[in-house]
Amino acid sequence: MEKIAIVGVGNTKIGEWYENSLRGLTDIAISKALESANIEPKEIESTFIGSMSSGIFNQQEHISALIGPHSGVNAPALRVESACASGSQALRVAMMAIGAGYYDSALVIGVEKMTDLIDIGDVTTALGTASDSLWELGVGATFPALFALMMRAHMHKYGSTLEEFASVAVKNHDNGSLNPDAQFRKKVTMDTVMNSRVIADPIRLFDCSPVSDGAAAVIVTKESLAKKYTDDPVYIAGTGAGTDHIALHQRPDITTMESTKRAVKTAFDMAKIKTKDVDFVEVHDCFTIAEVITLEDIGFCKKGQGGKFSLEGETALNSKISVNPSGGLKAKGHPVGATGIYQVIEVFHQLRNEAGKRQVTNNNIGVTHNIGGSGATCVVNVFSRGD
Amino acid sequence: MEKIAIVGVGNTKIGEWYENSLRGLTDIAISKALESANIEPKEIESTFIGSMSSGIFNQQEHISALIGPHSGVNAPALRVESACASGSQALRVAMMAIGAGYYDSALVIGVEKMTDLIDIGDVTTALGTASDSLWELGVGATFPALFALMMRAHMHKYGSTLEEFASVAVKNHDNGSLNPDAQFRKKVTMDTVMNSRVIADPIRLFDCSPVSDGAAAVIVTKESLAKKYTDDPVYIAGTGAGTDHIALHQRPDITTMESTKRAVKTAFDMAKIKTKDVDFVEVHDCFTIAEVITLEDIGFCKKGQGGKFSLEGETALNSKISVNPSGGLKAKGHPVGATGIYQVIEVFHQLRNEAGKRQVTNNNIGVTHNIGGSGATCVVNVFSRGD
Repeated sequence: MEKIAIVGVGNTKIGEWYENSLRGLTDIAISKALESANIEPKEIESTFIGSMSSGIFNQQEHISALIGPHSGVNAPALRVESACASGSQALRVAMMAIGAGYYDSALVIGVEKMTDLIDIGDVTTALGTASDSLWELGVGATFPALFALMMRAHMHKYGSTLEEFASVAVKNHDNGSLNPDAQFRKKVTMDTVMNSRVIADPIRLFDCSPVSDGAAAVIVTKESLAKKYTDDPVYIAGTGAGTDHIALHQRPDITTMESTKRAVKTAFDMAKIKTKDVDFVEVHDCFTIAEVITLEDIGFCKKGQGGKFSLEGETALNSKISVNPSGGLKAKGHPVGATGIYQVIEVFHQLRNEAGKRQVTNNNIGVTHNIGGSGATCVVNVFSRGD
Repeated sequence: MEKIAIVGVGNTKIGEWYENSLRGLTDIAISKALESANIEPKEIESTFIGSMSSGIFNQQEHISALIGPHSGVNAPALRVESACASGSQALRVAMMAIGAGYYDSALVIGVEKMTDLIDIGDVTTALGTASDSLWELGVGATFPALFALMMRAHMHKYGSTLEEFASVAVKNHDNGSLNPDAQFRKKVTMDTVMNSRVIADPIRLFDCSPVSDGAAAVIVTKESLAKKYTDDPVYIAGTGAGTDHIALHQRPDITTMESTKRAVKTAFDMAKIKTKDVDFVEVHDCFTIAEVITLEDIGFCKKGQGGKFSLEGETALNSKISVNPSGGLKAKGHPVGATGIYQVIEVFHQLRNEAGKRQVTNNNIGVTHNIGGSGATCVVNVFSRGD
C-alpha cells in the first residue's frame, strides 16, 4: 500500500481565544495549511474533522458542514470523535479514504473551542462526557479524579513518588517555554508543582493540562503526489488504534493502558520499527500520570519505572528519548479534539528541522501517542522524513 | 477495488425506549447482527459508530469505547458524526477502512437515544445544533422552521401544493403500517395530515418525522469473505457523499440540495447505474418537503414536480419507483444518527426478499439517501444482490 504524506500544516497558537469562534479558529488553521502546501482549496478532495464535544462546548454539531465550505474547501466532509483522540482518529480516517482510493487528497482538521462555556464546572462536566457518564461522571468522578485513582494505584503498586510525577510537569514546561505556539511559556520549578493546590488527591494543579482553544490542520496526499506540493514531505510510516473499556472499574489493571499497547504494536509493526528506533515522541500527558504510564507502555523504560525515568532526566530534550518537545498537553495546551493534530504538526516541524530552539537532534523517526478519555481509546502514528 | 458486502444486520424496533439506555439499545442491535452473520465478537476487527448528538442527548461522548467493549466486540472503534447522516457516514468509513486493507471486517452501528431529554424544547434545541447554530438556531430558526422556508420557496417557485406534500405522509404511513419495526403503524388520511396543527407554517404536524430512539447494526466484510458468513450477502455497489453550506442563506437555491446531486453522481458513477436502474429507494424524509426535493434531485421526476409525482401515486409501494417501503423517517421513525443504518437494513431485507408485506417486487438495485441538517451533508449508497 502506498504511504500517506503530509505536505502542509497550519495551526493557531493554543490559548484562550475568547475573541474568536470555532469557525474563526479553523479558518486560520486551514488557510495556513493551504498556504503551507501551496494548494488551492478546490484541489482538496475530502475533509475530515476531529472534535470532541462541539455540541456541548459550542452548541454546534455537524461542524463538517460548518467548517469546510466556509473555508472554501467545499469537499465531502465528516467529523470523527473519540474524545481527546478525535484528531488522530480523523487523520487515520483520511489515511483510510486515500488508501482505499476514494480521494487523492484530504484536509484534516482538529478543533476545540472550550472557552465558550463560562463556568469551569460546565467545562469539567463537558469533558466528563468522555468517561462512562453513568458510572463515573454521574457519581462525581471527574477526569482529575479518575487520573488520581490511576496515580494512587501506580504509587501503591510501584512506589512511584510525587516528585517523579512533578518532574514530568517541570520538563514539559521547560520545553513549552521554547514553543511560540504554546499556551504556557513559563518554566516552573519542582517546588511550584509539588506545592500547587490539590485538585483530586494526589493530583495537584500543576499535574493537569489546561483548558484550551485551538485549531490545527494538515494536508495529506499519497506518496506519489507529495512532491507536487513540497520538496520535504513527511510520511506516515505506521498507524495503529486500540480501544478498551471506557470505565476504569472494568479494566483489570489501571496502572497500564491496554489501548496504548495495542495501538503501539499495530503502528510499530506497520512501520517495521521497534521502540528503540524512536527518536522523539509526542505523548498524551493530560495529567502527569498519563505520561508516566505511557513511557512504560510504549516500552521506553520498565513497567513501574516511568516516574523514575522522568526524574532522572532521560525524557528531556535531546536526552535518551525526547518526550514532548512541544511542551506537551501540559504546557503547550490541550484543546481536546485538536490535540492529536497539534502533535502531528510538532512532529512535522521536528522532522523537517523547523522546530527552532526546541529542535531535537536525532530526528529520523517521530511518534505521536494520543488517548481518549482515561485511555479507553489510543491512536499511535509513526512518522519519517522523505529522504 | 474489491466490493464491500453486508453479511448480517440487527436492530431494535424504533420507538420511545424510556426503559432502556443508549448502551442497552446498541447491545440489542449488535447481538442480533452478530447472530445474523453467525460471527463471533472476536472475529470483528473494527467498529464504526454513527451518532449525532449523544453528548447532548445522553451526556455521553466517546461512545465508541462505551459501546464496543461492552458488547464483547473489543476492536478499534471510533464515532462518525455528520448530523442525521452520521449512520451512513459510519458505513462509508468502514468501507474505506476495509478498502484500504486496514481490516477485513467491521461492525457498523447507528444509534440515537433521544428520549433521555424530557423537555421537547430541549430535544428541538439539541437537533438545532445540526443547523448553523449562530445564524439559525441562535435566532430561533428550528428545523421545522428551516424546512418550512424550503417548502414555502418550493410552493412559490413551482406551484406545489399542501395536498402534494400531504401525499408523501399518507404514502409513508401506508408503508409503515406494514413494518413491524416502525414507530407508527397506523395509516393516516389526507384530511388528517392537512388538518393537523401548524408547527411552522406551512409545515403541519404530519409533515414531520417523530422523536425516536433506536439502534441498528450491520456487519460488513470484503466480497471475497462474504460467503463465509451468509449464502445471500448484499453488496455495496457504489457510495457517494456531498457537503454544502450549512446555513440556508448561503445557498443559491433552497429548493434543491447540491449535496444530494453530488452524492448521487459519485455513487451512481461508481455503481455504473443511471437513475432509471433504481428499483426502490429509502430517502431522507425528515419532513415531507425533503422527500419531494429528493425525488427531483435524484431525478425520478422533473424539477418542481416531486409533489405532483407523489400525489399521483408514482412513489407508492410497487408503483413506478418504490420510495420508502419501510415507512421512511416519517412513519418508521427517525433516531437521527441511526437513520442511515436503518435505511441500509431495509434495503438488505428488500434485496433478500425478507420484507414481508412491504416487499418490493422489483428488487435488483436499492438505494439509500441520507442527509444531515437541512441538507448540508448527503450520503447516497447503492446496493445490489449477490446473485
